Amino acid sequence: MSKPLAVGIAGLGTVGLGVVRLLRENADIVAARAGRPIEVTAVSARDRTRDRGEPLAQARWFDDPMALASEPGLDVLVEVIGGSGDPSRALVLSALRQGRPVVTANKALVACHGAELAAAAEQGGTTLAFEASVAGGIPVIKLLREGLAGNRISRVAGILNGTCNFIFTNMRERGREFADVLAEAQRLGYAEADPSFDIDGIDSAHKLAILAALAFGRPVRFADVHVEGIRHVSALDFSFARELGYRIKLLGIARRTEAGIESRVHPCMVPEGSPLARVDGVYNAVVAEGDFAGRLMLEGRGAGAGPTASAIVADLIDVARGRSAPLWGVESGALSDAPAVPMSAYVGAYYLRLMVVDRPGVIADVTCALRDSGVSLESMLQHGRSPGESVPIVLVTHETKESQMRAALDRIERLDSVLERPSLIRIELG
Amino acid sequence: MSKPLAVGIAGLGTVGLGVVRLLRENADIVAARAGRPIEVTAVSARDRTRDRGEPLAQARWFDDPMALASEPGLDVLVEVIGGSGDPSRALVLSALRQGRPVVTANKALVACHGAELAAAAEQGGTTLAFEASVAGGIPVIKLLREGLAGNRISRVAGILNGTCNFIFTNMRERGREFADVLAEAQRLGYAEADPSFDIDGIDSAHKLAILAALAFGRPVRFADVHVEGIRHVSALDFSFARELGYRIKLLGIARRTEAGIESRVHPCMVPEGSPLARVDGVYNAVVAEGDFAGRLMLEGRGAGAGPTASAIVADLIDVARGRSAPLWGVESGALSDAPAVPMSAYVGAYYLRLMVVDRPGVIADVTCALRDSGVSLESMLQHGRSPGESVPIVLVTHETKESQMRAALDRIERLDSVLERPSLIRIELG
Repeated sequence: MSKPLAVGIAGLGTVGLGVVRLLRENADIVAARAGRPIEVTAVSARDRTRDRGEPLAQARWFDDPMALASEPGLDVLVEVIGGSGDPSRALVLSALRQGRPVVTANKALVACHGAELAAAAEQGGTTLAFEASVAGGIPVIKLLREGLAGNRISRVAGILNGTCNFIFTNMRERGREFADVLAEAQRLGYAEADPSFDIDGIDSAHKLAILAALAFGRPVRFADVHVEGIRHVSALDFSFARELGYRIKLLGIARRTEAGIESRVHPCMVPEGSPLARVDGVYNAVVAEGDFAGRLMLEGRGAGAGPTASAIVADLIDVARGRSAPLWGVESGALSDAPAVPMSAYVGAYYLRLMVVDRPGVIADVTCALRDSGVSLESMLQHGRSPGESVPIVLVTHETKESQMRAALDRIERLDSVLERPSLIRIELG
Repeated sequence: MSKPLAVGIAGLGTVGLGVVRLLRENADIVAARAGRPIEVTAVSARDRTRDRGEPLAQARWFDDPMALASEPGLDVLVEVIGGSGDPSRALVLSALRQGRPVVTANKALVACHGAELAAAAEQGGTTLAFEASVAGGIPVIKLLREGLAGNRISRVAGILNGTCNFIFTNMRERGREFADVLAEAQRLGYAEADPSFDIDGIDSAHKLAILAALAFGRPVRFADVHVEGIRHVSALDFSFARELGYRIKLLGIARRTEAGIESRVHPCMVPEGSPLARVDGVYNAVVAEGDFAGRLMLEGRGAGAGPTASAIVADLIDVARGRSAPLWGVESGALSDAPAVPMSAYVGAYYLRLMVVDRPGVIADVTCALRDSGVSLESMLQHGRSPGESVPIVLVTHETKESQMRAALDRIERLDSVLERPSLIRIELG
């Protein structure tokens, strides 16, 4: 067996410690699969004195993570500090430019600086592996970049954030409101104290930007992703969804259209029997459609120390075996220049819930606004009557252009009889 | 871009032609992902004159496939002749020993001669890739060998044969009998004229043997797999399954137990809400459980020219990029010697359907036979009464050892009042 692969880990939070634990507990398996032992020989974190519950005595300690970029004797750097800025960005760029392979779980970094990272890796003649950055323990990067490498991908869609899926699953199963379930998720540790990164869709959008770049072989561009979060979805919407045969999911979707690449993150109504509809709780899942392979779905745990460590160690084993790929599946010069399609050009069906005063003429006002913007209706739901009071009405449209729907919505929001901000949820294949 | 990867294809059936078509239609994508063009420069098949609908003029033609093992100028051999014997076996062994990488879709070959193939590849310092041999377009080999490489796998289970899943899905949805649905599957091209390889479980067992070897890092041993087919499952069983909250699926299951590795293919009752229960029609799916990654499921099209070509070309792209792994994930010398657990030691719950004469004392005879063999009952179903005539009764047991269940069954089959061979279906987590 060859000499051990010497690993330096920058960041000793939950994920970093998960990697240390996996490499210790499964040392035999890892060495057999990697063809050589994998050993943590250097670490960097803020507080050297804290007891982290993992033996780290044999690793050299560095207060400054930047030292790991060039420390002699290291074969590979694991970056699990997080965040798209420095020190992560400077550290990873520096290591790559010096020809040191890097493994990271940092989706923000990869989504926001992907082109710069690819250039640095090409300059250094080395590789950046980031399986852990999307969907935790699910090897979806490998699926798109290697498993489906021969396919023209038409669509990739996924449940990419376990916090949002946990919240939606609970809202559906127990008929509860968003704020209530969010508070519980925070108590259980499934949501951060400041949950906005998750529930406003940013985390999903980082991951989708990465998947879209890989699926369509084009430069990663986080700014191209249209992002909506889940705060505005209410218990009422879940009740209407059930009646209409849908589940509500926060999806990230990237699609090849005639005009270019569409990429968006927003709550969706998906048909109950569709593959993504059935993925509940903290599970993540990704569906990809290839012209030869057909539809594939990959489902599993999208977060947590164990699944994330599993992905990082898989990348380390690839490094140990000398297996690598260009960051985005193809060399930078071979990336496609397919344009991004703006959200205003999106075409699809919509679910629209309004809270209106129950009085004569309201429905006519609403439906006229839709008609005048060229939006045609498939169905309408209204239950019971409460003259003079607030009642929900739900409208489902036929396929409509987003810009037309937005124009109709502007008019509808200005109607006196419409009491709250309308709830608009796009209807999507699962 | 480097010089093209020159491919020789042995076998021009549906799959071989699918590979030719993919390499032609997606030549741009393949070249970008592979870092170089991939070209078919030599082919071998029986009838040189037949029009196959694909331009093959630029490829040299060989009547004897063995020529492709050593033909100068080839970079890689694709073996899609099929069958565990010669010429496939001789061809692949010869190519590997000469240091020529081979890509194959041949599950029988890999399952029956895996150790010999690994030795030949090690001898030649090259690689055999066989993603297409299991579950068609689903990259499950890559998932187990690379994606989950850092995990101790506890269980891998899958729907590995689309023909059987199509038949069971139709029996369930339309209440039809096995023979009837099989005939339709044959008309539709989903089942062979001689369907025994599929419906007797052999095909699933080949694939399971491969998955088990990869998951547990032990030598592939087809003979270790306990195999039962689907001929004995009737429409009545589907009706009782629905009543009990189960779906019936033909699963391949390999599990690590304290005594060693258990591997078996047989019809299973799986709870309706479980992941594998929901996989219908010609779709395949594999569930794997790792100690760090948790439960993963991969679902997609398990057969057909397109999905199989997708897997073969993914392997070719790996070859072009220089990505490889030892056949069984670890070098031959590092394979585990965990013993195979015989089926008699299996422990689980059983569904047992009997056709009995409806007369006093029959239930007592049956339940005494179970009790005397140490089998305890969880529930019993009997509907209506038809004194003196044949009626079904269904018994569901608690966890029982297979040897005890077999002993009870021997006694039950000999009872005068039991009219047909009992239907025994194991109950399994999905």
